[in-house]
Amino acid sequence: MSTFAIPRSVEWRETHVTILNQQKLPSIIEYIDLHTLEDVYEAIATLKVRGAPAIGITAAYGLALAALRYDTESLDEFRRRLKRDRDYLASARPTAVNLFWALDRLVTAAADALSVNEAKTTLVHEAIRIQVEDEDVCRRIGEHALSLFRPGERVMTICNAGSIATARYGTALAPFYLAKEKGIELSVYALETRPVLQGARLTAWELMQAGVDVTLITDNMAAQAIKAKGIGAIIVGADRIAQNGDTANKIGTFGLALLAKSFDIPFYVAAPLSTIDLTTKTGADIPIEERHPDEVTHIAGVRIAPEGVNVYNPAFDVTPNELITAIITEKGIIRGNYNATLPSLFTKEEQHETI
Amino acid sequence: MSTFAIPRSVEWRETHVTILNQQKLPSIIEYIDLHTLEDVYEAIATLKVRGAPAIGITAAYGLALAALRYDTESLDEFRRRLKRDRDYLASARPTAVNLFWALDRLVTAAADALSVNEAKTTLVHEAIRIQVEDEDVCRRIGEHALSLFRPGERVMTICNAGSIATARYGTALAPFYLAKEKGIELSVYALETRPVLQGARLTAWELMQAGVDVTLITDNMAAQAIKAKGIGAIIVGADRIAQNGDTANKIGTFGLALLAKSFDIPFYVAAPLSTIDLTTKTGADIPIEERHPDEVTHIAGVRIAPEGVNVYNPAFDVTPNELITAIITEKGIIRGNYNATLPSLFTKEEQHETI
Repeated sequence: MSTFAIPRSVEWRETHVTILNQQKLPSIIEYIDLHTLEDVYEAIATLKVRGAPAIGITAAYGLALAALRYDTESLDEFRRRLKRDRDYLASARPTAVNLFWALDRLVTAAADALSVNEAKTTLVHEAIRIQVEDEDVCRRIGEHALSLFRPGERVMTICNAGSIATARYGTALAPFYLAKEKGIELSVYALETRPVLQGARLTAWELMQAGVDVTLITDNMAAQAIKAKGIGAIIVGADRIAQNGDTANKIGTFGLALLAKSFDIPFYVAAPLSTIDLTTKTGADIPIEERHPDEVTHIAGVRIAPEGVNVYNPAFDVTPNELITAIITEKGIIRGNYNATLPSLFTKEEQHETI
Repeated sequence: MSTFAIPRSVEWRETHVTILNQQKLPSIIEYIDLHTLEDVYEAIATLKVRGAPAIGITAAYGLALAALRYDTESLDEFRRRLKRDRDYLASARPTAVNLFWALDRLVTAAADALSVNEAKTTLVHEAIRIQVEDEDVCRRIGEHALSLFRPGERVMTICNAGSIATARYGTALAPFYLAKEKGIELSVYALETRPVLQGARLTAWELMQAGVDVTLITDNMAAQAIKAKGIGAIIVGADRIAQNGDTANKIGTFGLALLAKSFDIPFYVAAPLSTIDLTTKTGADIPIEERHPDEVTHIAGVRIAPEGVNVYNPAFDVTPNELITAIITEKGIIRGNYNATLPSLFTKEEQHETI
C-alpha cells in the first residue's frame, strides 16, 4: 500500500469545511475546520486558502454551510440572508474573479427552489458539483498534457499550478499525478518562484506528498538545469489567456518561455477554459500588477536588502503567443493560430459573456 | 559636498588592517580592525571579506602585519617565519587562487632583501602595491566599459562584481562609479542573485552608498524588467574565462546571456586579465561546483522548502563565447574570435605560466 497521496486543499464534511492551511506550508502541515461563515471569510482573506479554483470551492461550501443554518421557512427571508452572506464572502478577496463566479453560481442554482429545504439541498449539491467539475477539468487537462511527455522525461515548472490550488490534480502539475497513478516515471524541476516562493513552499511539498520525483532549484538556475539535466519541456499554469493566446502568469514565466525557445524545447500552458478571456484581445491589454517592495526586500520576515532600496516588483508577466508551443485545456491541446482556435472552444453564448 | 562615497572593503592602517564585515551587510555596516595574523585568518575563513581581489589584498596586508612583528635580526629566521605564516594564511580558504597569488608575490618580493628591516619595508610596500594595482585595473576596466553605455542607459547586472569585492570600483560595477564621478547618469537593475543574495545584500548596498541609481529585482523578473524598463545592456563579472572566451560566473549569468540575445541587447563580461586562464581551452573544461542544499532550502536561517526535498545547487554556470558581445579588460575591449584575441593580451612568458 502506498503511503503517498495527492493533497487536497478543501473537503466538505457536512457540518464544516476542512482546509489545508497553505500559509504554514511547508514547515507545518495544518488542516483547519471551518464551522462558520466568519471562519470561511477569514481563511480566504488571510490567504490560508489560495488558488482561484480552491478559493471558489471554499467560498461555495462556506455559503452552503451558512445557509443550512438559516432558521426560517420563508423563501424571501432565506434569499435575503443568502444575498447578504454572498456579498460578505465576496468581499473577502475583492479581486478573485473565481470567488464571485462560484458564489453567484450557488445563488442562481437556489433561485428556482420551491422551499427553503429544497434551496438548502440545492446549495450543498451545487457546491459539491463545483468541486467535482473542477477535479474533472483538472484530470482532463492532465490526461492531455501527459500525452505530450515521454516516459522518464524531466519537465520544468514555475509557481504552483497544483492540486492544492484547485479541487485536485491542479493544471500544470496534473500530468505528474496522472503519470504517478499510471506508473509512468516523470521528474519535475520546480523553480522556487521568488518573491513569494510558491514553488519551494507549495509545489515541492505537494509533489513530494504524492511521491512524484521533484528537484528544487532557484529561479536563476533554470538555464543551467535545462542544459545540465536535459530538461525536455516546460509546463506552466495561467492567470489569464487573451484571445490571441498571450498568457499572463506568475513573474518569471516569460523568461522561461524565452529559455525554452533558446534550447528548442516545447513550452506548454495548462489551463481550464475559464482562464481564457475572449474580451482580452492581446496581452497588451493586460495591466501588470506591481506589488509591495517588502515582498522582494524581506523573506520570511527577515530583511535581505538595504533600507530604502528601489524595487520593481511585477506580480506576473505576459508570455507572447509565439513562444507557446501549445495551450492544454480540458477540451484538448490547442496549437498555433490561437486567435481562431481559442474562440472555437466556446459556444456562441459563451463568447458573448464577459467576466 | 557629497555625502556619497564608494565603499572600500580593505584599508591599511600601519598597525592594523580595517575591513568591512560583508557577512553583516546590508543590515549592519560594521568595520573590523584586524590586529593579528589570527584575526586576518579568521576574517578570510568566515567570509567576512569576500571577492578574489579583496581576499588577496587582505591576506597580503595580514602577512605584512605579522612580519613587522618578527623579533629577529636573522634573515633566515625571518624567512622561515614568513613561510610558516604564508602557509597558515593560504589555508584560510584553500580554493582561493588569488589568495595564494598575493601571498606568494609578497614572499618573492622579500626574497632579495639584504636585511630584516628591508624585508619588512618591502612586504608592506608590496601589499600596498597589490591594492593600488588592483584599483588601477578596476578603474581602467570601468573606463572602457563606460565607453559602451549611452548616458541615461539602464543596465542590468547579477551578483556582486563590485567595489567591496576588489580594491575599489569593482569590475562590472566600475563603469557606474566612474559615471557618477563624471556626472553621467546611468541606472542599474540588480538581480538579487539567489541563493546567497549577493545582489540584494551587497550590490544594492554599495551602489546606494555611492549614490548610484539602483533598482533591485528578483532573478525571475529579468525578462519582464528588460522589456518593461527598456534595459539597454547587461554587464557581469567573471570567475574564470577560458581561452575561447567561454565564461564561468555566478549561477544565472548564462540565463541572462540568453535573454540578452533574445532581446538583442549587448551582453558584456568585465574582468581583469588575471581572470583569463589560457590553460582552460573551453568552458567544457570547467567543472561546475555544486554547493550545499541548505543554501537553497533556507534563507537567513529560515527553512523555506520541505524537509528532505531534492535540490540542484550549481554555484555557477558557463556562458558560451558566442553569447558574449565583448570582454572588457584593463587592456581594452575584446570582441569576437576570443581564441586568437585573448592570448594576444599576454606576453609569451605569461602565456606559458599556469595558475
